[in-house]
Amino acid sequence: MADQNVIVLGGSGNVGREFLSQVIQHDTVFSNKHLNPTNIIALTNSKGFWFNKQGLEIQKNPENVDKWKHSKEAFNEYMQCLDQYRKYDNLAELLKLIDDEGMSGEVVFVDITSGKDDLRDFHLKVINDTEESIVTANKNPLSIYSTKVFRELTRFRERYGFRCTVMAGANAVSNLLDYYDTSEIIKKIEACFSGTLGYLCAELEKDERSFSQILNDAKRMGYTEPHPKDDLNGRDVARKLIICARTFGHNVSMSDIDLEGFIDESFLNIEDVTEFMESIKDADQEVKRKFDSAKSKGKTLRYVANFNLCENGDSTFKVGLREVSPGSPLGNLKGSSNKVIVETDIFNGDKKYIIESPGAGPDVTAWGLRRELLSRLRGRKGGDYKLT
Amino acid sequence: MADQNVIVLGGSGNVGREFLSQVIQHDTVFSNKHLNPTNIIALTNSKGFWFNKQGLEIQKNPENVDKWKHSKEAFNEYMQCLDQYRKYDNLAELLKLIDDEGMSGEVVFVDITSGKDDLRDFHLKVINDTEESIVTANKNPLSIYSTKVFRELTRFRERYGFRCTVMAGANAVSNLLDYYDTSEIIKKIEACFSGTLGYLCAELEKDERSFSQILNDAKRMGYTEPHPKDDLNGRDVARKLIICARTFGHNVSMSDIDLEGFIDESFLNIEDVTEFMESIKDADQEVKRKFDSAKSKGKTLRYVANFNLCENGDSTFKVGLREVSPGSPLGNLKGSSNKVIVETDIFNGDKKYIIESPGAGPDVTAWGLRRELLSRLRGRKGGDYKLT
Repeated sequence: MADQNVIVLGGSGNVGREFLSQVIQHDTVFSNKHLNPTNIIALTNSKGFWFNKQGLEIQKNPENVDKWKHSKEAFNEYMQCLDQYRKYDNLAELLKLIDDEGMSGEVVFVDITSGKDDLRDFHLKVINDTEESIVTANKNPLSIYSTKVFRELTRFRERYGFRCTVMAGANAVSNLLDYYDTSEIIKKIEACFSGTLGYLCAELEKDERSFSQILNDAKRMGYTEPHPKDDLNGRDVARKLIICARTFGHNVSMSDIDLEGFIDESFLNIEDVTEFMESIKDADQEVKRKFDSAKSKGKTLRYVANFNLCENGDSTFKVGLREVSPGSPLGNLKGSSNKVIVETDIFNGDKKYIIESPGAGPDVTAWGLRRELLSRLRGRKGGDYKLT
Repeated sequence: MADQNVIVLGGSGNVGREFLSQVIQHDTVFSNKHLNPTNIIALTNSKGFWFNKQGLEIQKNPENVDKWKHSKEAFNEYMQCLDQYRKYDNLAELLKLIDDEGMSGEVVFVDITSGKDDLRDFHLKVINDTEESIVTANKNPLSIYSTKVFRELTRFRERYGFRCTVMAGANAVSNLLDYYDTSEIIKKIEACFSGTLGYLCAELEKDERSFSQILNDAKRMGYTEPHPKDDLNGRDVARKLIICARTFGHNVSMSDIDLEGFIDESFLNIEDVTEFMESIKDADQEVKRKFDSAKSKGKTLRYVANFNLCENGDSTFKVGLREVSPGSPLGNLKGSSNKVIVETDIFNGDKKYIIESPGAGPDVTAWGLRRELLSRLRGRKGGDYKLT
């Protein structure tokens, strides 16, 4: 049967609510619209979960989406009226429930949390001890632990979809996986993986506002992490590079990456957000100097993740600001878009493979998750949809 | 079992021999190297086929690839010594053979021919009357007949892989299919689908040689079709646009496309190649005028396939030379690379999805076919390859 039962982990956040709303409007089993319908049978938050074997009630009323989509509070309130909420101690209780309900092997977990150890443990348990599947936008389980954990999780291609962990709306990860599984050696990767840092570069090269002004505005508009150092230290970009490199077979961890933050380390150690935002005025001059220096050479700056397989077989991994020509594939990248340039044995020289896609955003990530669900379907149906 | 039996249709041509050589070096069931091995059990040419249920002998000797890879003649000679050759009247005899051998439902046909009616009939027969699958680089069955034929062929997503019919090394088609199957409406497509015409544009904008000189050189280097009018009339580009548009649900045929050739129609009607190559000197002035005119406006020219979903629900399909800004996504395309820019409900404005990949070539197409074979595997294994 070309449909699947889904349990959403962390469904009440921004991406979670967007995902739910897209599923309800396009894919849900209750609408009879989709040839490969999705049935959301459970939804978790940090303290408990809603569960209904026949599918959560919320899916039956697409016209109510606007009532709960705009805020977590409204969502929780709406859900309380519709479905029974159960508290739990840990995620593993969900696995027992699936077993008790006779649904073993029929469930896909969609991880939209930013959980770490507990989610790593849960992912491993699902893959190693059950027949359920996982589709994840949470990159932590794949990037902040050892390559061994990565390999354990991703070894069943159909049961672990992780395309949304890097350039969520794109085929970047699945493409690298295809190269790897066809024994096509990756020689080089160059990528801009951060929408936020891409936006900063694009604004800085206009030379209209100072770095601290741009960052302040970006933070106010919600373009940055709650603490902008989590963008500026480059660790998120490095984690994406780690996932890519592991995807094509490398044993690599954070300590193998030559990582330089967007600004000096001394700023990035300030834990207090207000203090941090005050301090970064002192970075303006240095940032401006770097951009001016690039400009004087006819170049511009991008925050680039780079993998290089050297002639002697060694590999280098670098993340940091790099001077590029404005007309080059990374130099011509605009705004917050992401881009990855891949070179392999076959795809090289003038024959590179390049993907450019939006720097995420809840709608893009949510769509990516729906696509990933679809892609893993056996017996996926198609061909007689209506366009309307 | 994560392997598959493959019958190659048209295996002795350039792409066919490259495909065979890649399979033999990386994927064959005999090498014990690949977790998802491919077993080539038959190979056809126009008059007959080689068949061996256990796998063609040629796969057992990777060290001999260089003996037959460089020419069709050498290949045929090599094959004669190894495997029994049988003549046939039509491809349908292969289906009877599969049945007789008890292999029903276990075979994938890889179509690397440029066949038309006979291949359309065969594809339809395979999809409608058997349980075998098809992976095709041959775009004719999907583009030169009705949308009905397209829909009939592609309705089982897992049994008909056609990613290699447009931008063979890329995910362009599968991405459009994913948009369609997730009900994500495509609003606009802009694409450069011809490596040859891309090369001509790139050379012409340098303003160093005349159009006829560039075309003569390109023909000599094997960059063009045997008769270059088959590139210049834009019909191949239009066929790719048709496949894309049908992939996301449109009922469209050649007559719906507003098609303008690279040069004037009067040249494109000359059937004799020598006469044609003589005549095109007379096109030089007009081509130069167009490029000069674009340049005077700060623009350049690209040969663009365009789909547009209008506000009123109508669709337009255009193929022809178009003025674009040099820094725009199509304007910054270099050499013979292809590019497609997709806009949807979610992916729009600054959030477009863009794929750039090589303008085919046998190695890219052959790799694309191997990837397509892999992608359709149930139980695809991964995770413990060695990099060497």
